[in-house]
Amino acid sequence: MVNQDSSPRDAVVATYRLRDRKDKLEARAEGIAVGLTIGTWTDLPAARKSEVAKHCGRVEGIRVLEERPEGDVVAEIDIAYPVANLNGTFASLLVTVFGKLSMDGEIRLERLQMPDSLVRQFPGPKFGVEGVRQRLGAYHRPLVMSIFKACAGLTLDELVEAFGEQAEGGVDLVKDDEIFFTEAYATPEDRVRAYAAKADEIAQRTGRRTAYAVNLTGPVHSLRERARRLAELGAGALLVNVVAYGYDVVADLARDPEVHVPILAHPAVSGALYGSPNYGIAADIVLGQLMRLAGADIGIFPSMYGSVTLGREATDRLLQHLRAEGAHKPVLPAPSAGIYPGLVPRLYQDFGVDLVLNAGGGIHGHPGGARMGGRAFFDAIWAVEHGVPLEEAAKDRPALRQALEKWGMPS
Amino acid sequence: MVNQDSSPRDAVVATYRLRDRKDKLEARAEGIAVGLTIGTWTDLPAARKSEVAKHCGRVEGIRVLEERPEGDVVAEIDIAYPVANLNGTFASLLVTVFGKLSMDGEIRLERLQMPDSLVRQFPGPKFGVEGVRQRLGAYHRPLVMSIFKACAGLTLDELVEAFGEQAEGGVDLVKDDEIFFTEAYATPEDRVRAYAAKADEIAQRTGRRTAYAVNLTGPVHSLRERARRLAELGAGALLVNVVAYGYDVVADLARDPEVHVPILAHPAVSGALYGSPNYGIAADIVLGQLMRLAGADIGIFPSMYGSVTLGREATDRLLQHLRAEGAHKPVLPAPSAGIYPGLVPRLYQDFGVDLVLNAGGGIHGHPGGARMGGRAFFDAIWAVEHGVPLEEAAKDRPALRQALEKWGMPS
Ligand SMILES: [Mg+2]
Ligand SMILES: [Mg+2]
Repeated sequence: MVNQDSSPRDAVVATYRLRDRKDKLEARAEGIAVGLTIGTWTDLPAARKSEVAKHCGRVEGIRVLEERPEGDVVAEIDIAYPVANLNGTFASLLVTVFGKLSMDGEIRLERLQMPDSLVRQFPGPKFGVEGVRQRLGAYHRPLVMSIFKACAGLTLDELVEAFGEQAEGGVDLVKDDEIFFTEAYATPEDRVRAYAAKADEIAQRTGRRTAYAVNLTGPVHSLRERARRLAELGAGALLVNVVAYGYDVVADLARDPEVHVPILAHPAVSGALYGSPNYGIAADIVLGQLMRLAGADIGIFPSMYGSVTLGREATDRLLQHLRAEGAHKPVLPAPSAGIYPGLVPRLYQDFGVDLVLNAGGGIHGHPGGARMGGRAFFDAIWAVEHGVPLEEAAKDRPALRQALEKWGMPS
Repeated sequence: MVNQDSSPRDAVVATYRLRDRKDKLEARAEGIAVGLTIGTWTDLPAARKSEVAKHCGRVEGIRVLEERPEGDVVAEIDIAYPVANLNGTFASLLVTVFGKLSMDGEIRLERLQMPDSLVRQFPGPKFGVEGVRQRLGAYHRPLVMSIFKACAGLTLDELVEAFGEQAEGGVDLVKDDEIFFTEAYATPEDRVRAYAAKADEIAQRTGRRTAYAVNLTGPVHSLRERARRLAELGAGALLVNVVAYGYDVVADLARDPEVHVPILAHPAVSGALYGSPNYGIAADIVLGQLMRLAGADIGIFPSMYGSVTLGREATDRLLQHLRAEGAHKPVLPAPSAGIYPGLVPRLYQDFGVDLVLNAGGGIHGHPGGARMGGRAFFDAIWAVEHGVPLEEAAKDRPALRQALEKWGMPS
């Protein structure tokens, strides 16, 4: 191999799953390693080769996974790309490891092993698990986040009322609908101000202040300024459509010290990248690894309890990306869809205590409304923390009792 | 249907190809139209329903394409989303039409019909076909663009020499490698300055000045400033990794009057979205429709002559997006991969005269080098314009003759 002197520590190793003829695999891998980094060796003067070699990719492995009757194989290949080719942006990372190659037939980016030197070029979470807990004053238990059932078309008064109903339940965070873009009735600034006032009013009575995760919207050039302003006005978090805007857009927010507010990363559009098993980019990269690098403090992803899941293995890898020891602070996972109070013991088992319980229908659908819906989650948390079975705890806790009557427990 | 009063003119209609049980299609479509716009009708006070209805989606069509033996069907459904839900950003468009839905199993976004009122919210190309021709002084013929064979690891002197070799062939544009991010040897500003000087020097001799399409790199917050600066320094075009950065990032550049330089949109990473036939977003949307909206003046896409193609139908739809009459200027198509001089008559047939002949190997691989490689393309253009068969024209045109000897003509 050409690039003997570059140690793995100076390279990002990408693993691809692809289909090709078995006798072509080696040439294909070489073609990627050289063709998609330095282009060619052929016409370089000998004196220049050692310098250019520092930028050349290298084949690190070829593994046949499956032989097909037609003569094709499904294989994994590992290519190391020198960190020297990158510039600390996601654009450089993605274009280098899956730029032209993404258009090269049946091929999927399955893994990215990044050296610490590269990881540190990205901002990572500003707050992370502990920082978010501090801001919300919520320790040693999962956080509870409620999702607005609807937003578009409602007046500011109606939205404030809906926020208040959720806040009365004591939830830590209320998040905007990620599809809430219209400012016909109220700007995000209006909402942050109005909800903050409502949260204060409720906190005076209850002692619990609910934070608001506002959808960060608008043209890219306005986002940092808007994010700073929303933080200043008292936003509890910024909900960001990371995939639709681009990871580099979010990294800019995470790098800006004046955007002093956690980032709640929404997975909208991500299925277009990870959906297919044979094309695109693995879900744990899209929703785990890249989200943490970009600076997500809380990462939403499809839970394994809803109708469409990532599967256990992909979820485990995703969690690993969010939480593994490393250069960056860990991210709070927020598995979404199919979350209801009876599931809380199972969520503790599956995710541990550093977790966001993110519920829409599981809060709003409560027979006593969103207020009781939030309380039911806290009742369930209390039960788990005290080692009391939910059914037992429900006896003198009407919110939890009604939730269990409606939704039961997982089988 | 709930939203009777909203006319199609006020909505973007998205067509999805999906697989589901036949008896579930109608409920699924309704669930998307309502659930992914206003969330729910259930708890709205009657007095509010007419206001909220303006934001509600609507099922416009359900067509079964294929019945599977297992009881599943492959179907297309059309959902109309009110323009009132959007805010003129790609984030709002993509999250609305394929946000959560992208994560909902086997589903692909196949078409987007956008009303003029929405199209006009996006910038579109600043230059378009005529504007690019004016800047390059190249009329009534395809443009010729040469691609740097390699960039990383070369010194500025070496790069200038490689630029000069290509410019000597008279090509209209020389484009950076889209994977060229490192500034270890020269910044983009250094390159623009140095190549411009070289281009001037050659133009004094030959009367033809070659422009340089410089890769626009760096953190998002720096891009507009850098783009303005590169334009000021004499960049001929900005090569932009649109999918990796995000369409909204590019729209910001297109909207900025000080970024007075054409945008050359590279398709890197796009295969991760369009590769699968069953998931993701159709190639003509990703590389045609959205590129034009975002402000690409030249759009690169995989040609139907290379090893991996989009197919004839997708290519036709893509061209339609780039060229159709409408609110925005048309985009110059730059089909890439497998382009060599012998193919020029066929390219005229397939694409007409408003076209970029974008060649890497088909220029550098010429027996006489890049200089003769560029000339061979102009020889071929001359032949087509004068109705002379290439073989005939090649007799007293050595550049073309050698190209035909090496690569021949398409069969
Ligand atoms: Mg929602
Ligand atoms: Mg290249």
